Amino acid sequence: MENPLKTLWAEGKPVLNGWCSIGSAHTAEIMARQGYDSLTVDTQHGAFDYGAALSMLQAMGGKKVVPLARVPWLDAGAIMKLLDAGAMGIICPMINTAEDAAAFASYLRYPPHGQRSFGPTRAGLAYPGYGVAANDAVLGFAMIETQAGLDNVEAIAATPGIDGLYVGPADLTLGLSQGALPAGFDRDEPEIVAAIKRIAQVALDAGKIPALHCMSPEYAAKALDWGFRMVTLNGDARLLAAASGASVAAFRALQNDA
Amino acid sequence: MENPLKTLWAEGKPVLNGWCSIGSAHTAEIMARQGYDSLTVDTQHGAFDYGAALSMLQAMGGKKVVPLARVPWLDAGAIMKLLDAGAMGIICPMINTAEDAAAFASYLRYPPHGQRSFGPTRAGLAYPGYGVAANDAVLGFAMIETQAGLDNVEAIAATPGIDGLYVGPADLTLGLSQGALPAGFDRDEPEIVAAIKRIAQVALDAGKIPALHCMSPEYAAKALDWGFRMVTLNGDARLLAAASGASVAAFRALQNDA
Amino acid sequence: MENPLKTLWAEGKPVLNGWCSIGSAHTAEIMARQGYDSLTVDTQHGAFDYGAALSMLQAMGGKKVVPLARVPWLDAGAIMKLLDAGAMGIICPMINTAEDAAAFASYLRYPPHGQRSFGPTRAGLAYPGYGVAANDAVLGFAMIETQAGLDNVEAIAATPGIDGLYVGPADLTLGLSQGALPAGFDRDEPEIVAAIKRIAQVALDAGKIPALHCMSPEYAAKALDWGFRMVTLNGDARLLAAASGASVAAFRALQNDA
Amino acid sequence: MENPLKTLWAEGKPVLNGWCSIGSAHTAEIMARQGYDSLTVDTQHGAFDYGAALSMLQAMGGKKVVPLARVPWLDAGAIMKLLDAGAMGIICPMINTAEDAAAFASYLRYPPHGQRSFGPTRAGLAYPGYGVAANDAVLGFAMIETQAGLDNVEAIAATPGIDGLYVGPADLTLGLSQGALPAGFDRDEPEIVAAIKRIAQVALDAGKIPALHCMSPEYAAKALDWGFRMVTLNGDARLLAAASGASVAAFRALQNDA
Amino acid sequence: MENPLKTLWAEGKPVLNGWCSIGSAHTAEIMARQGYDSLTVDTQHGAFDYGAALSMLQAMGGKKVVPLARVPWLDAGAIMKLLDAGAMGIICPMINTAEDAAAFASYLRYPPHGQRSFGPTRAGLAYPGYGVAANDAVLGFAMIETQAGLDNVEAIAATPGIDGLYVGPADLTLGLSQGALPAGFDRDEPEIVAAIKRIAQVALDAGKIPALHCMSPEYAAKALDWGFRMVTLNGDARLLAAASGASVAAFRALQNDA
Amino acid sequence: MENPLKTLWAEGKPVLNGWCSIGSAHTAEIMARQGYDSLTVDTQHGAFDYGAALSMLQAMGGKKVVPLARVPWLDAGAIMKLLDAGAMGIICPMINTAEDAAAFASYLRYPPHGQRSFGPTRAGLAYPGYGVAANDAVLGFAMIETQAGLDNVEAIAATPGIDGLYVGPADLTLGLSQGALPAGFDRDEPEIVAAIKRIAQVALDAGKIPALHCMSPEYAAKALDWGFRMVTLNGDARLLAAASGASVAAFRALQNDA
Repeated sequence: MENPLKTLWAEGKPVLNGWCSIGSAHTAEIMARQGYDSLTVDTQHGAFDYGAALSMLQAMGGKKVVPLARVPWLDAGAIMKLLDAGAMGIICPMINTAEDAAAFASYLRYPPHGQRSFGPTRAGLAYPGYGVAANDAVLGFAMIETQAGLDNVEAIAATPGIDGLYVGPADLTLGLSQGALPAGFDRDEPEIVAAIKRIAQVALDAGKIPALHCMSPEYAAKALDWGFRMVTLNGDARLLAAASGASVAAFRALQNDA
Repeated sequence: MENPLKTLWAEGKPVLNGWCSIGSAHTAEIMARQGYDSLTVDTQHGAFDYGAALSMLQAMGGKKVVPLARVPWLDAGAIMKLLDAGAMGIICPMINTAEDAAAFASYLRYPPHGQRSFGPTRAGLAYPGYGVAANDAVLGFAMIETQAGLDNVEAIAATPGIDGLYVGPADLTLGLSQGALPAGFDRDEPEIVAAIKRIAQVALDAGKIPALHCMSPEYAAKALDWGFRMVTLNGDARLLAAASGASVAAFRALQNDA
Repeated sequence: MENPLKTLWAEGKPVLNGWCSIGSAHTAEIMARQGYDSLTVDTQHGAFDYGAALSMLQAMGGKKVVPLARVPWLDAGAIMKLLDAGAMGIICPMINTAEDAAAFASYLRYPPHGQRSFGPTRAGLAYPGYGVAANDAVLGFAMIETQAGLDNVEAIAATPGIDGLYVGPADLTLGLSQGALPAGFDRDEPEIVAAIKRIAQVALDAGKIPALHCMSPEYAAKALDWGFRMVTLNGDARLLAAASGASVAAFRALQNDA
Repeated sequence: MENPLKTLWAEGKPVLNGWCSIGSAHTAEIMARQGYDSLTVDTQHGAFDYGAALSMLQAMGGKKVVPLARVPWLDAGAIMKLLDAGAMGIICPMINTAEDAAAFASYLRYPPHGQRSFGPTRAGLAYPGYGVAANDAVLGFAMIETQAGLDNVEAIAATPGIDGLYVGPADLTLGLSQGALPAGFDRDEPEIVAAIKRIAQVALDAGKIPALHCMSPEYAAKALDWGFRMVTLNGDARLLAAASGASVAAFRALQNDA
Repeated sequence: MENPLKTLWAEGKPVLNGWCSIGSAHTAEIMARQGYDSLTVDTQHGAFDYGAALSMLQAMGGKKVVPLARVPWLDAGAIMKLLDAGAMGIICPMINTAEDAAAFASYLRYPPHGQRSFGPTRAGLAYPGYGVAANDAVLGFAMIETQAGLDNVEAIAATPGIDGLYVGPADLTLGLSQGALPAGFDRDEPEIVAAIKRIAQVALDAGKIPALHCMSPEYAAKALDWGFRMVTLNGDARLLAAASGASVAAFRALQNDA
Repeated sequence: MENPLKTLWAEGKPVLNGWCSIGSAHTAEIMARQGYDSLTVDTQHGAFDYGAALSMLQAMGGKKVVPLARVPWLDAGAIMKLLDAGAMGIICPMINTAEDAAAFASYLRYPPHGQRSFGPTRAGLAYPGYGVAANDAVLGFAMIETQAGLDNVEAIAATPGIDGLYVGPADLTLGLSQGALPAGFDRDEPEIVAAIKRIAQVALDAGKIPALHCMSPEYAAKALDWGFRMVTLNGDARLLAAASGASVAAFRALQNDA
């Protein structure tokens, strides 16, 4: 029961995370073959819920990539079901207070470190020997993506059982600017960049992993310079839309030239 | 990003809402062709959850009918996922207090008007250009269906971000009569009718849309006279059961005659 | 291992058959409660295939109604899989020759009466004791719905193992009129009625069950007078569309009156 | 609207409960044929959620076995949806206080005995006549599986609307020992056995049903001696793994001998 | 009942076809938004069958793109089911003889032009008014992808009811070279290019539409110069794999530079 | 692209095959962990078709066990789709003649050894580098299970591209005895045993793999003595039914004793 992501961090390497918004075991298996270190099935904004997530985790089984999951909300049942399904870590949105963080952490681990209920039905198949020792392998990322979350970031980072702070730039920007700035990733507004950097520093100071949701490889590389130790790079739905759209556009341009 | 239901109301027209209790994209597509103004996928009492609801919303895409969804309970994750899936409005059961109403409203809209998280994965496909401007298009209906809800109806109606009050007569009757009256729709007991009319009036006074769940066209037409501006007319499961049952009964009668 | 439909016929009673075109266990369970003697899951024109058919047969389990299935085409694999899934009879489209009929019959029964492969995985759960004796319980209906089928109807009816002739009036009309008459059920053109009656008579003369696909109870009752011993009455998709459409129309009429 | 489990208890007989962790209507139908008195679809640790649970309940329809369901967490929406889907009782994990118990009980029954919302869409198909009278038929089992739950067990047992206390030995052991003892069922540590017996006695004293999750028939039989009136016996996933593993091992041993 | 692809051809414009190998309504909806003229759900080599294809066609409903489908093999049931599900044309693999072509054509159209069975269950929802007139709207593409198919290409092209010849370069290359050349698209071996051009010319001479499966926009544009009037451009699974792989590679390069 | 089963045979070891009749990725993953050398997803008598088979193959990915599939019938489309989905071999029922065998073999391999169409969509993900070289890795087992098949067994065994003869004892017994003997496995009637042994010998003489479907480890071990080089041992549905039934029976016996 080791989590290979911890090994990467121990070796001083960053973690490159992929992102699944499409609820399909086929797309999950495609993504699992591309060289990401971890791959997150997103049951929050992804167009799927537990049933598809399970089939995606099953299809990722036996691949080198480490499966993670994002839950729709701070919800004990959803978190524990995804861990039982084989996710090796949970990203939880909208952690705004230390109380949120403590509740989240408690759902991730068996007693005495939490209140996770025992019954790792599929995790036990995916990882022979899975049991209480999973407490050491499972990761919990608290998303900092509101003004309140930013205000309480030190307390959140200090919460035992929280392994990392995950920055959601779209929501953080909407929240900090109170809707004045448009939603989106790869921000360059100084006040947003400052907030993002601050979260990274707070995490590092607390001995936790700072993680950032990015679009472009260039921005993700820059995030490493800011201290982030995990970067998410785009996601399946956007990658497919962009690639197919570009292919069509290229053909239409050639067609119009002719 | 306009909601055609708002246009109907602006023109002084009522909204005729259809209802899907069957978890099937096929039945949803049948219902979407019948001339309802809106069509609600009911993930509360309907025999399906998010996965089927998504496929139903996908099958309704491109039809003229406006898709709505009912959630099982006041639950941030469920509400946001159905909005992301393309529902243009949410009906939330069991809103009993102004606090319930405020929480519900906050889940429907992006900052600064709420705490909805950004990531309209399918809504962005269904409605090109969908973004923060969805705040103006998305509708929130608070269900008034308990004694407590009725006691607090003015405060609920006054809650910013609540667009309408939706009356569930079956639960309201059970609640007001403490189980003394049977469950069911299209009530004619004076005390229940009075409560229903009162909710309509409170909504109208607060500039909100009163909506009523009805069975028969006649009752729905009467509801318009009471001031309701949205009426739900029966639902797929009951319509199918009644139609097939009547067909069998007609044949059996002819068979017995012969 | 008895087939209740055989009991009905032995008692001189007709069989009233319901029809499922919607691929949903929920609609199948609704239909199973309406008083039909048998209920057919249509994997030919129904919008579903084996997977949904299985779930529909499972949901019909334990109900009084006898489950039947229509296959997409004369296909050994499809026929045997639906029998294994618990269908107590198969309706096979487009049986045009005695050779077609003999092949069809052979797929329905274990040796020495056919070449059905043994492995009634779900049928064995649905009907404890199911085994080779199913040969006597399972029914095979050959659809007569082309000019060729009509030309060969006596030979088809005479084929051992064919239990009934099932008339598909829409295709039969297209075929006999070479597209000159519109598709549809409940025909009243004399030449089509004559053909339909002839098929019934051929079946009866051969000791087989004539069956007719009907829409209205009145037409179905008339079919009994013509000698049909099994009548299908409308179907779930049409019943739902008609009932919801009528409900909308009634409301719109009342709305316009007001 | 009777619950056959109540009849068994009235006759002084124990209830033998089966357990479904696999999300498949096929395995549910297999389990439903084995002679259990009740069969629980486990949406907590089982590898499935509502959608598969519905199909399992549909496949169990018409069988003699009484369907129950475990929910992932104390969640009104999940509880009511499973009741609407036809579960005749709910097992709720992690009931730690009388407040938890009261909330749980309120979700199970219609007013005036609770706040269950009316709309038994599939239950009405499964049990003709299902309505408010379901209040008397539906069962609620509070799981006692933490130190806090044990501390409050008398108050939980005394809560109106709680029909039984269900002991989850794996979590209870982790909780009481603070992780010092390994997870698992069929405990024989004296302090754990004492706690288990105490819960049984508290339930009996309060006129409630004590239930225990067991693995072996021998342990389950012993639990009856301790006063338990309902015992769960192993579960589908473990039974399949053990049986197939034993079959392989037996072959390998024979192969190695040869 | 018009097929917009016919309008494009009548206007002298080529058809740009997209390709779905992933069995997901979500990816289908993404692809449907990218500006392809038509979009093919591939039930041959795509990792899905009828059930997913139906949900994909439903999700494409109401979009401008014209839905087509490829069947696994020359199979009447599969072809008719996909037409009933709303495909406006069928691509059939491995048409090797005029007899194959005639059988294929017969499955596409109602009498007197073929033997398609009547029952357009979902097509009737997707295209109000769909009926026998669909004979003029539905398209049939015969795949030429073997030595035998090439040998018989003139007779295949001359078959009434065949609307186009669709070239599968991977199989054609394996077949013509008897496995000596590797599989793949966008061929540049002179003998393969010559065969491809010959098929285009034969189609044009017979008044039929030549179509080519391509990968790059450049090759597709070149195909137009060769006379092709329909070109398929890559496909969802490859586009996603390439885009995500490129994104990872770009990040790794930047990471290594740092 | 190696097939580990070939390695086992080259080392003189038998192959122990497991069997999946339940259409569930969860049960497939359980079975994949038990130590079978190969595991067959049975789309003939198993209660599932391609869709579930795909999810089962995905869940088996990355496990040591080699995935095989049985098709419902000799059907090019079904065979090629399961190969594309990642099955490393196909078991085809009811091969009765050398013509059947030659057709079957042709569907398994790319030119020049067959007519398999190129497009290994999921196989390419499961086995990086999968391509035309799969011709050497993929296995084809012809089922001998009728009198005709037995009569032609030498010619079937001699057919190039047939890798093994797979004996289905239930159907073979029904066929040889013309229904006089009951269906079932692990036969001990001398004439059936003689036929089974003969098939093994014919396969061995032709340099092919004889395989036998068995229930008990003892019978499977005996089959090795008869020369079989692959034995199937029971199957998931029967194992589960037997194990749960035995558990219930043991409890009932203890209960009755008390």
